[in-house]
Amino acid sequence: MEARIAMAGTLGPNQSLIDERASRARLITPVLVLDLDAMERNIAAMAAYAAERGVAVRPHAKTHKSVQIAKRQLDAGALGICCATLGEAEALAAGGIEGLLVTSPVVAPAKIARLMALRQGNESLMVVADDMDNLQALAAAAEASACVLNVVIDVDVGLHRTGTRDAATAVALAEAAVESDSLHFAGLQGYAGHVQHIEDFGDRRASSHGDLAPLREARDRLAERGIEVPIVTGAGTGTHDIDTEIGLMTELQVGSYVVMDVEYLEVQAEGGGDWRFEPALFVRSTVVSASHDGSATMDAGLKCFATDGPLPRFHTGVPIGAHYEHFGDEHGRIVFAGANERLAIGSALECIVPHCDPTVNLYDHYHCVRGETLVDIWPIEARGRH
Amino acid sequence: MEARIAMAGTLGPNQSLIDERASRARLITPVLVLDLDAMERNIAAMAAYAAERGVAVRPHAKTHKSVQIAKRQLDAGALGICCATLGEAEALAAGGIEGLLVTSPVVAPAKIARLMALRQGNESLMVVADDMDNLQALAAAAEASACVLNVVIDVDVGLHRTGTRDAATAVALAEAAVESDSLHFAGLQGYAGHVQHIEDFGDRRASSHGDLAPLREARDRLAERGIEVPIVTGAGTGTHDIDTEIGLMTELQVGSYVVMDVEYLEVQAEGGGDWRFEPALFVRSTVVSASHDGSATMDAGLKCFATDGPLPRFHTGVPIGAHYEHFGDEHGRIVFAGANERLAIGSALECIVPHCDPTVNLYDHYHCVRGETLVDIWPIEARGRH
Repeated sequence: MEARIAMAGTLGPNQSLIDERASRARLITPVLVLDLDAMERNIAAMAAYAAERGVAVRPHAKTHKSVQIAKRQLDAGALGICCATLGEAEALAAGGIEGLLVTSPVVAPAKIARLMALRQGNESLMVVADDMDNLQALAAAAEASACVLNVVIDVDVGLHRTGTRDAATAVALAEAAVESDSLHFAGLQGYAGHVQHIEDFGDRRASSHGDLAPLREARDRLAERGIEVPIVTGAGTGTHDIDTEIGLMTELQVGSYVVMDVEYLEVQAEGGGDWRFEPALFVRSTVVSASHDGSATMDAGLKCFATDGPLPRFHTGVPIGAHYEHFGDEHGRIVFAGANERLAIGSALECIVPHCDPTVNLYDHYHCVRGETLVDIWPIEARGRH
Repeated sequence: MEARIAMAGTLGPNQSLIDERASRARLITPVLVLDLDAMERNIAAMAAYAAERGVAVRPHAKTHKSVQIAKRQLDAGALGICCATLGEAEALAAGGIEGLLVTSPVVAPAKIARLMALRQGNESLMVVADDMDNLQALAAAAEASACVLNVVIDVDVGLHRTGTRDAATAVALAEAAVESDSLHFAGLQGYAGHVQHIEDFGDRRASSHGDLAPLREARDRLAERGIEVPIVTGAGTGTHDIDTEIGLMTELQVGSYVVMDVEYLEVQAEGGGDWRFEPALFVRSTVVSASHDGSATMDAGLKCFATDGPLPRFHTGVPIGAHYEHFGDEHGRIVFAGANERLAIGSALECIVPHCDPTVNLYDHYHCVRGETLVDIWPIEARGRH
């Protein structure tokens, strides 16, 4: 471990300085803390669940953006890793990760050129498409590179973000892929992002089952035509135990389960499902000003927490009942529940991250702990790879 | 220019690939575009304003986080640069920037050690303090380093984020700094962050003048005691033309004026002030999916735009009346005003950034244009330096 810690000095400009007796309490704040024990339990729990249901897992790296976490998911049986962008796929491929699926369309000519460059070293690479012009551009690029590119046809299942508008369009695209010499039709995708955070389990279940109808229809129509559909990929942490009920998905694109966040902890607590993933990701911060009654100021603000979802939730280091308020780019406000409560400057505290994916994107490194001991520092290789 | 463009290959993982005929239209999206002409006009306008009013400018780098922009502000007459964090100051000092003021308290022992390391090469470095224990820690560290550290006493002027609770506390801290052999009392700071975005000019003016009372009181009490107050620093873009009316500030910590954003453009347009800064910072994006009537999907989402303030505003490339909606980490939704409007996949568009400071923090580089030509790529050195 000493070698690793010494190596920290070479990890780049955003690192926290740590000494040879590295511990969680000595971390320079603000810092993103990853609890490896909790993360490993989450990975094991999802792997066990999927094995029990007879479905595969292709976890989504849009959450963690990390080669080291992807490796641990693969070690636990995942058959590959999803990426939201070409840039994420490039970053993970550079770290040796295989079985990559790019879950958003790659459209611009310069990006298709990069996709083909990535394909050269990665035969298992897959990319989604939802448009005939785009599919033809992919086919032409693959032909020019003298390779066969795996494409997954993306079917909109109600989010209206990407995906074909209906099953018939998906079938036409799949048939075009089958007919192309430079494309391999790898299967179908349907991701119901709008369903994942519906708090009530019954509502979430009903929405998901209903919205997946076009995906099922596309699969069934292709089967009628004798076209094999190797994979049907989709679902998220919020529907991982719902979408396996209807015999449609062959693999789950689960992301947030690996570290969890306030948003999903609320769904888990309130929603009536029977999954119990643990928070594994924390922002550690220090009180830097305490001049006023009723509140104190900490050194983590808009640049340390995603602001698209709920607020950060205090985990350790503050009096019970205190809550967080944003207080500008660099600061947060600790609002005490009791009139006489105070925190001295220099006090450390930790928060559960509000929404994990965009919060991780604000950091260059995970500071990995087991209990109160810092045991490793991992780069977040796909940070900023829009 | 060709040398610069060739150099782009060494700029790191988040760069956009550009070819030798680099142009704005060829940028790989999503990408942060800086209009140098507009930025230079903003810098010149603020410099001219300050010269006219006889006040100095120490622009705040929390907005731009960039050595190149700081250099241009200094070239235009700024007497130094403000930084929100020690990490920002380290990044700018590494780029040769002098006259740095760290505008938030530096509290943790390990950070004070880094502050003293930074002080070794930067005699002009200043840091704020709002607490006697912190001031004594700074004095002890400076004494141990055998140097004299410049401290500015931070006075709360209504934001309650940092700063002493009242003028009397500020006076006590200033006197302690004057008495210390290892500290130099450099002056007072008062930043009314809560006032900057009040839309109505009259309301903003009344709030700012009222809230600055403790800062004025501290200055006057120190003068009564014969203690010189070398600088009184504060204000922002929203109050730069207000805080100069009352003869208190010796320098303005203006930040956002240099590139502007939707938030400040609204204040400027609605507020009745007479400043006219131009938007100089844009996110360029591409339509990647267009399967549905009434909307299209672009490749810039939560990871490309700050989400703490207003929404991005379309600048070019979309039909009049279209508006932006967030659509997840990697995507935005272009909602058309007209029923028959469409954008083809591959279409490019640009948005004015919603809130500049945290938006800049999501990128590794500025892609600098003049008109439609890419002329340079600047690293954002202080990105992520929480």
